[in-house]
Amino acid sequence: MTAQVLINGQWQDADATGTFQATDPNTNALLPETFPVSSWQDCDAALDAAVEAAKVMRGLSPQAIAVFLETYADLIEANKDALVEAAHRETGLAKSPRLADGELPRTSNQLRAAADSCRSGDWALATIDTAAGIRSCYEPLGPVCVFGPNNFPYAFGSVSGGDFAAAIAAGNPVIGKANSSHPETTRLLAELAFQAAQQTEVPDAIVQLIYRTSHADGERLVSDPRVGATGYTGSRSAGLKLKSSADQAGKPIYLELSSVNPVVVLPQALAKQRDEIVDQFVGSALMGAGQFCTNPGVVILVKGSDADDFVSRVAERYADAAPGTLLSPAVGKSLRASIGTLCDLGVDLKVGGGELETDRCALANTLMTCTGTQFLSDPEGYQTEAFGNASLVVLADDVDQVVNILSQLEGNLTGCIYSDSEGGDDPVYDQVAAALTPKVGRLLNDKMPTGVAVSAAMNHGGPYPATGHPGFTAVGIPGAMLRFGKLTSYDNVRPARLPKLLADQNPTGNTPRRIDGDWTTADVV
Amino acid sequence: MTAQVLINGQWQDADATGTFQATDPNTNALLPETFPVSSWQDCDAALDAAVEAAKVMRGLSPQAIAVFLETYADLIEANKDALVEAAHRETGLAKSPRLADGELPRTSNQLRAAADSCRSGDWALATIDTAAGIRSCYEPLGPVCVFGPNNFPYAFGSVSGGDFAAAIAAGNPVIGKANSSHPETTRLLAELAFQAAQQTEVPDAIVQLIYRTSHADGERLVSDPRVGATGYTGSRSAGLKLKSSADQAGKPIYLELSSVNPVVVLPQALAKQRDEIVDQFVGSALMGAGQFCTNPGVVILVKGSDADDFVSRVAERYADAAPGTLLSPAVGKSLRASIGTLCDLGVDLKVGGGELETDRCALANTLMTCTGTQFLSDPEGYQTEAFGNASLVVLADDVDQVVNILSQLEGNLTGCIYSDSEGGDDPVYDQVAAALTPKVGRLLNDKMPTGVAVSAAMNHGGPYPATGHPGFTAVGIPGAMLRFGKLTSYDNVRPARLPKLLADQNPTGNTPRRIDGDWTTADVV
Repeated sequence: MTAQVLINGQWQDADATGTFQATDPNTNALLPETFPVSSWQDCDAALDAAVEAAKVMRGLSPQAIAVFLETYADLIEANKDALVEAAHRETGLAKSPRLADGELPRTSNQLRAAADSCRSGDWALATIDTAAGIRSCYEPLGPVCVFGPNNFPYAFGSVSGGDFAAAIAAGNPVIGKANSSHPETTRLLAELAFQAAQQTEVPDAIVQLIYRTSHADGERLVSDPRVGATGYTGSRSAGLKLKSSADQAGKPIYLELSSVNPVVVLPQALAKQRDEIVDQFVGSALMGAGQFCTNPGVVILVKGSDADDFVSRVAERYADAAPGTLLSPAVGKSLRASIGTLCDLGVDLKVGGGELETDRCALANTLMTCTGTQFLSDPEGYQTEAFGNASLVVLADDVDQVVNILSQLEGNLTGCIYSDSEGGDDPVYDQVAAALTPKVGRLLNDKMPTGVAVSAAMNHGGPYPATGHPGFTAVGIPGAMLRFGKLTSYDNVRPARLPKLLADQNPTGNTPRRIDGDWTTADVV
Repeated sequence: MTAQVLINGQWQDADATGTFQATDPNTNALLPETFPVSSWQDCDAALDAAVEAAKVMRGLSPQAIAVFLETYADLIEANKDALVEAAHRETGLAKSPRLADGELPRTSNQLRAAADSCRSGDWALATIDTAAGIRSCYEPLGPVCVFGPNNFPYAFGSVSGGDFAAAIAAGNPVIGKANSSHPETTRLLAELAFQAAQQTEVPDAIVQLIYRTSHADGERLVSDPRVGATGYTGSRSAGLKLKSSADQAGKPIYLELSSVNPVVVLPQALAKQRDEIVDQFVGSALMGAGQFCTNPGVVILVKGSDADDFVSRVAERYADAAPGTLLSPAVGKSLRASIGTLCDLGVDLKVGGGELETDRCALANTLMTCTGTQFLSDPEGYQTEAFGNASLVVLADDVDQVVNILSQLEGNLTGCIYSDSEGGDDPVYDQVAAALTPKVGRLLNDKMPTGVAVSAAMNHGGPYPATGHPGFTAVGIPGAMLRFGKLTSYDNVRPARLPKLLADQNPTGNTPRRIDGDWTTADVV
């Protein structure tokens, strides 16, 4: 029996143009559940319901929306076992610690953080100019479509992850498009979200779920006049098609597309802290079979015996480590293709690159090197993202060439610089940081990039093509919520008609508002 | 002799593919000065210089940039007479009060407000998470291209206006593209800006000026890898071409495109406050010959004798008022075409619509009406923007039809609701406001929209196609500066390497920063 879609508060048969099944990457066998490919009719019905839900949500208190988010967080935790079972089967990610102890609590915590921000209104940057009689804040934007990625079935999931939490907490209903590699996990999450909606005051259509559409219908969806905005995390090629369509319609679309997350290890750090950095790098690069948006895909070193030693130690570790399971056959295919592209360009394959004798969806841990001059001969080619357990080490002639290489990088989510803790690299740090910082959303020192803390100071974003706009973060409350807000000024609007957030009285007693230039939690006097 | 472009700190002959002259709309005669149409070579040289200037600016203190902005503001005021003379000749706008007493001081004040925000860093939303060791803020984005509109030669000018001030104060150099209808005014402003640069510590190429390019080169410019972002205010058709090009390259572009700025007068207000509202409407609608982005182009009334009376009074006033001078023959041509489109749709032409016997660039004040049913039969057609001294009154059957009409509107900069001051319209206000607010960037009560205060709470923005993104304002410091910032997180970055804005010590003693969730001007302890 084909799974049902969730539209307008009803689990119902899709208006389907076909069906699909996910694959268990642990065995490479098709999973039994079948899921519908929805026609435009399903999208259209979901959009209509979302428009009505958005209207209802504008009339709700922030408290009502916060309670929904918290109820949902509780339900996720109460149903941990089923969620972990489903996600492991569909993604191959380890049940523990990854799914049960890492991603799942991160997800419920993120929902709770969004609830806090919704309740306080701190995300909305309420601004009051008493002399001019003008008050402004961010407000809900309208229905948000969320396309989740394959690699975080909960924390970036279309009906549970960061985009979902941010969009809902900003007051918008969500239409989730499941990632096709883990539809059953997404269905379970949507069931819990819908339960939470039924148990609380929010409209049922605050969350809706479809599993897959044609590409054309996906493009139509993100550009539909009823849509407020779209959040997308996934492959660059699919994302750019959606972007083109949304852009033409003037609809905001926030995309997380690709990133090689360059790591520069400066010469003195490489000389003195090599073992430690090798440990950190291998741990970060192979974690989750390298399938992190912030996986350190490219390491840049100055050539020499220290660099050679770094490469040979990493190569040993890569050869020894059991290759992780890839998320799906599609990831394997794409990884194989990227390694092929890099090999064709002339990288030196140090270890891996080949197939494994296994039923799992997996490839050998792969380490490649190239010279800085090679890289500079085709920067676009050598920046090919190899999503998975494959890494490229670039051996530059000197620090000046490192700077040249950095200046040729596309936009990335992160960039790291390891430098001597005793100051030995300080003479060159500034020029390296000056070249790297404009290219990345997050600059790290002495630390690998794979951890993405849910922090108000986090930027999980970066210049194109890491994302579609360098001013927004996809992780971190309250920042991530701004993506789903519309700025509205109230000019000379009568006091009783102002949104509570902009009334003279502070709506919660502790909501930060910028009143006549100063941030304060006081009332307007 | 053809005017020179300002590239890389040199007034120099353009690499020109042709020349053009502006028209004096007071006489419809060509002005004597000729200006070059730049080839790509000029754009390319300006981009290279801007990249270098951007690097230098990253190393400057906010104080240095603030002093530049203030010096420039002083120079604008010191050269008021020449600027007013030039702008009057090129735009037909009145020397006083409009240019000398309104727009010019607004422009210098805006530059000073931007200087204040640059100095304090309040725009950058500095956020510090001490537990996670992550700190973030907005930073310069890179060279900004500014395309100014025809209707505000100073306050929205490409080298003097709101986009310029915001981009510079956020730390970015500007490449200005003059509006072709007032190139001499823009040249004078660029001379002053350049003088200010030479008198202060900023790089010469902080401001550069070209006058015109081919459409293809304009599209190439906004999508060039060296560009950080673009600000554009002007016609929808030209703006959408630039948007398409910038979008494809993943470059932020902020556009202000078009807006009919709907005004709803609710029945009791119309009955009781008709004279006053007629006065306010006629004043706002004909101000500057209606050539304001926030001109109230569409008025929506419930039909009946009060509405008929409103229309006939406005018609009288329109017939009696001397038609203002339009900015250029191109504006006249476009206004004529828009009135023609509306007449073809079947509006009732109450007054005007025709040519005038005058040497000035001017058309008769024009008032049109249509029924609500007509409007709903072709909402897109009846929303044709008639930029200039022409207005459309829509006579709806009842308040429900008003709400239907509002729900069919495209995005607008502003929307106004007049309602009875004694509460007679309160029973219907909420449903009207609920339909109007999502469509506009600024909601007004009992007030016409043409005044755009430079306030921190101002939103001069709105949903597409009023602008390209509903989350940004083009007017108002510090908000407008966020458009030209890149969000950057510093994760585990060593204290001495942090930007001053994110150091433990508050950089000014009074910069607001969000430290562990609370806005404060204190140091990190």
